[in-house]
Amino acid sequence: RESDRAGRWVTRGLIGLIVVNVVVSVLETVAGIRAVYGDVLADLQFATGVVFALEYGLRLYVADLHPPLRRFGPVGGRLRYVLQPTAIIDLLAALPLLLVFVLPGSAFAVVVILRLARFFKLVRYSPALRSLLSAIASEQRALIGSFMIIGGIILFAATLMYLVERDVQPDAFASIPHAMWWAITTATTVGYGDVVPVSVAGKMLAGLVMLLGYAMLALPVGIIASAFAREIHSREFVVTWS
Amino acid sequence: RESDRAGRWVTRGLIGLIVVNVVVSVLETVAGIRAVYGDVLADLQFATGVVFALEYGLRLYVADLHPPLRRFGPVGGRLRYVLQPTAIIDLLAALPLLLVFVLPGSAFAVVVILRLARFFKLVRYSPALRSLLSAIASEQRALIGSFMIIGGIILFAATLMYLVERDVQPDAFASIPHAMWWAITTATTVGYGDVVPVSVAGKMLAGLVMLLGYAMLALPVGIIASAFAREIHSREFVVTWS
Amino acid sequence: RESDRAGRWVTRGLIGLIVVNVVVSVLETVAGIRAVYGDVLADLQFATGVVFALEYGLRLYVADLHPPLRRFGPVGGRLRYVLQPTAIIDLLAALPLLLVFVLPGSAFAVVVILRLARFFKLVRYSPALRSLLSAIASEQRALIGSFMIIGGIILFAATLMYLVERDVQPDAFASIPHAMWWAITTATTVGYGDVVPVSVAGKMLAGLVMLLGYAMLALPVGIIASAFAREIHSREFVVTWS
Amino acid sequence: RESDRAGRWVTRGLIGLIVVNVVVSVLETVAGIRAVYGDVLADLQFATGVVFALEYGLRLYVADLHPPLRRFGPVGGRLRYVLQPTAIIDLLAALPLLLVFVLPGSAFAVVVILRLARFFKLVRYSPALRSLLSAIASEQRALIGSFMIIGGIILFAATLMYLVERDVQPDAFASIPHAMWWAITTATTVGYGDVVPVSVAGKMLAGLVMLLGYAMLALPVGIIASAFAREIHSREFVVTWS
Repeated sequence: RESDRAGRWVTRGLIGLIVVNVVVSVLETVAGIRAVYGDVLADLQFATGVVFALEYGLRLYVADLHPPLRRFGPVGGRLRYVLQPTAIIDLLAALPLLLVFVLPGSAFAVVVILRLARFFKLVRYSPALRSLLSAIASEQRALIGSFMIIGGIILFAATLMYLVERDVQPDAFASIPHAMWWAITTATTVGYGDVVPVSVAGKMLAGLVMLLGYAMLALPVGIIASAFAREIHSREFVVTWS
Repeated sequence: RESDRAGRWVTRGLIGLIVVNVVVSVLETVAGIRAVYGDVLADLQFATGVVFALEYGLRLYVADLHPPLRRFGPVGGRLRYVLQPTAIIDLLAALPLLLVFVLPGSAFAVVVILRLARFFKLVRYSPALRSLLSAIASEQRALIGSFMIIGGIILFAATLMYLVERDVQPDAFASIPHAMWWAITTATTVGYGDVVPVSVAGKMLAGLVMLLGYAMLALPVGIIASAFAREIHSREFVVTWS
Repeated sequence: RESDRAGRWVTRGLIGLIVVNVVVSVLETVAGIRAVYGDVLADLQFATGVVFALEYGLRLYVADLHPPLRRFGPVGGRLRYVLQPTAIIDLLAALPLLLVFVLPGSAFAVVVILRLARFFKLVRYSPALRSLLSAIASEQRALIGSFMIIGGIILFAATLMYLVERDVQPDAFASIPHAMWWAITTATTVGYGDVVPVSVAGKMLAGLVMLLGYAMLALPVGIIASAFAREIHSREFVVTWS
Repeated sequence: RESDRAGRWVTRGLIGLIVVNVVVSVLETVAGIRAVYGDVLADLQFATGVVFALEYGLRLYVADLHPPLRRFGPVGGRLRYVLQPTAIIDLLAALPLLLVFVLPGSAFAVVVILRLARFFKLVRYSPALRSLLSAIASEQRALIGSFMIIGGIILFAATLMYLVERDVQPDAFASIPHAMWWAITTATTVGYGDVVPVSVAGKMLAGLVMLLGYAMLALPVGIIASAFAREIHSREFVVTWS
């Protein structure tokens, strides 16, 4: 019980560190903030990086004590631990610290992405997030099917609009991939308005695509909503934070 | 029964006053209307404010007669009443009247916000609203989890788009927080169109974010829809107005 | 059985006439089409109008033969029939024909609206539409509650944005009603992009409103979806066309 | 079992060919890619076309061996097979190959559409897609009813906005069909922003249309979601890939 409470505080501390680290990584990209608080942010970045590296080291050190891995011996058990998804996420979270010394300045993109990949560590500590993700994963076939329908609608919308508008707007609808940019912004109801059909036939087609895109939303929502409802009915849907 | 009917008319009258007060507070900010009807609106503002202050005073006066609070005595009972959420809303609704005499003209923002906070008083009088809010509250962990997923998608979309477009559009994608403005308008399918990716890689990434943002909507909708369905199945979902 | 089949053909004919009439009323407003086909469209408008007037006359003539109205006598039964919602819709559909002779040219708006009100006659002939509308009506309290929440979010979003952006964009955010135009286009995820916050605080507030507006959609969808699910479970949801 | 495994590999190969063919058809419309890789793409187009033609030929050749068609004899069985929906899709997929030799260059649009129609062949090989489509088809009456409601809202929104804004913006709102372009982009929450009301009455009407359009989405989503939920409850919803 005492160790339970200690474990909960360690978990909360690690969640706090992840949030601090992600916020620092985001703010470091703002030139104005970097100019003034650059040193403080770099220190925070380094300190949280050290904690993630230490966490990974300690987890790896005690990995061979876990009952399911114990029987593979100290080396085999640790090797198997390293290949688990959660251990890979922990390693990715520890990597940016080491890469700073190794990589040249041009690998900026790699470091930025790896730093933000620490956000994935939250999945480890949030049962609510894990429940949601597993409910989504359980319907992956139906979701793939619905994305094939959505993809097919976008493909046909783009093809028809390309045929209708390419003479009127040869730049915006120069090819089917060009027309797909219009089709995807329209079918998902984002509607930037940077590419808009101007001919009467184009506008009628666009209206149809809008209505289809609007109704299409029912597919993923219906699948997820009924997956959740089923989870709730069959066994108590476990959505607890800690 | 007679007092029930009287109570219902008092409730309806108070609902009417809240609506009148909120409409007056909104119209008072329009220069053209203030120039012509300024005095009438100020009088209405004052009159409804007096009623809310009187309501608060009367509720506080009789607070120690309520069975659960009676045993704490006239002072203790009233102190406990004052700290209840509904009593705090009533106090906030009564405050703007008093603040006009105290605050300088520069505290305009505080007065405007407090005046519109009277809208919260409606929750007190509408069981339908309370039922909806408690159904939402009962799923807060799942909703926090789904907002973490949405937040994570927005964070990654912003980071990747920042890396892809910062050379092409150094102003719009100057930093990750800048790119977040694009990411949030796109993932929520609002799509103002003030910031739009122009490179091919950026447009492909944007298309992916649109589809993810579109599907993401299934999470809160699925959670709320199945929460409502469960409420209806288990016990009769009480959605009555008065 | 023979009269059943005849009745079905009359119904289909009337549905066809409504569709023809609505299409004609829409096309008549296009200057280019009116210049070329003006006479044909006017004739079609007149012919369908005569049929609707005849239909109303015949229905009124036989109204006192209906069992529930028969006992009120020829005059009383017909008076009661006239006040029924379906009879009022039929009367509105018959009116434009008569008004053309009575009203001056300036009453153009009244005639256009009345003509399109004929669309409501479809509700009379489509049980699927009636089922959907009654399912929506059965949840009107929960829907009013959810629109109060949506209205409250829009009101607060507009108020806060008015306070934040009125110094930077004095035209677009001149008053709370002005800011409401921004708030409503954002919270409903329409996002025209004609009014966009420019300050950092305004953009952060806008991001919050977008996420809230996005999640808010769960309320009406959840209510309607669970109302449909309940209809299906309790009694067979009758969605037949004729 | 051996032939089962072989059949599965043939199916996977055909799915791969369809994907390759659709990607090639899309890329062929990009001028830059056609200039460089035009010959390779044309060869891939031809090769996949030959496979689809062969597939159709073989399927037609063995059609009279299928138990339900065997009793119609070699000619009658094959004729009946040719008229089945899946056989028509296979024929459409095989056609572009033949049409290249027959059609003049001006029939570009027909060839492009027929090539992309090969996407429909995927429905043949994906049970998940078929399950989704049949779940949608089972609710077609309710969906038609909900699209009539959506259509009615768009029609009335366009008519009223035409009456309100035609004096202020005579170009954008020149007729009801013109106003419908605004109404459909607004009610489906796409919101391009190319046509926006400017008068106060127009903005109030637009706000109402946005809220209605926002809530309207509940209809198709609710229908599809409860159809899925019912499928799951009554019999195990078969969503398998192969």
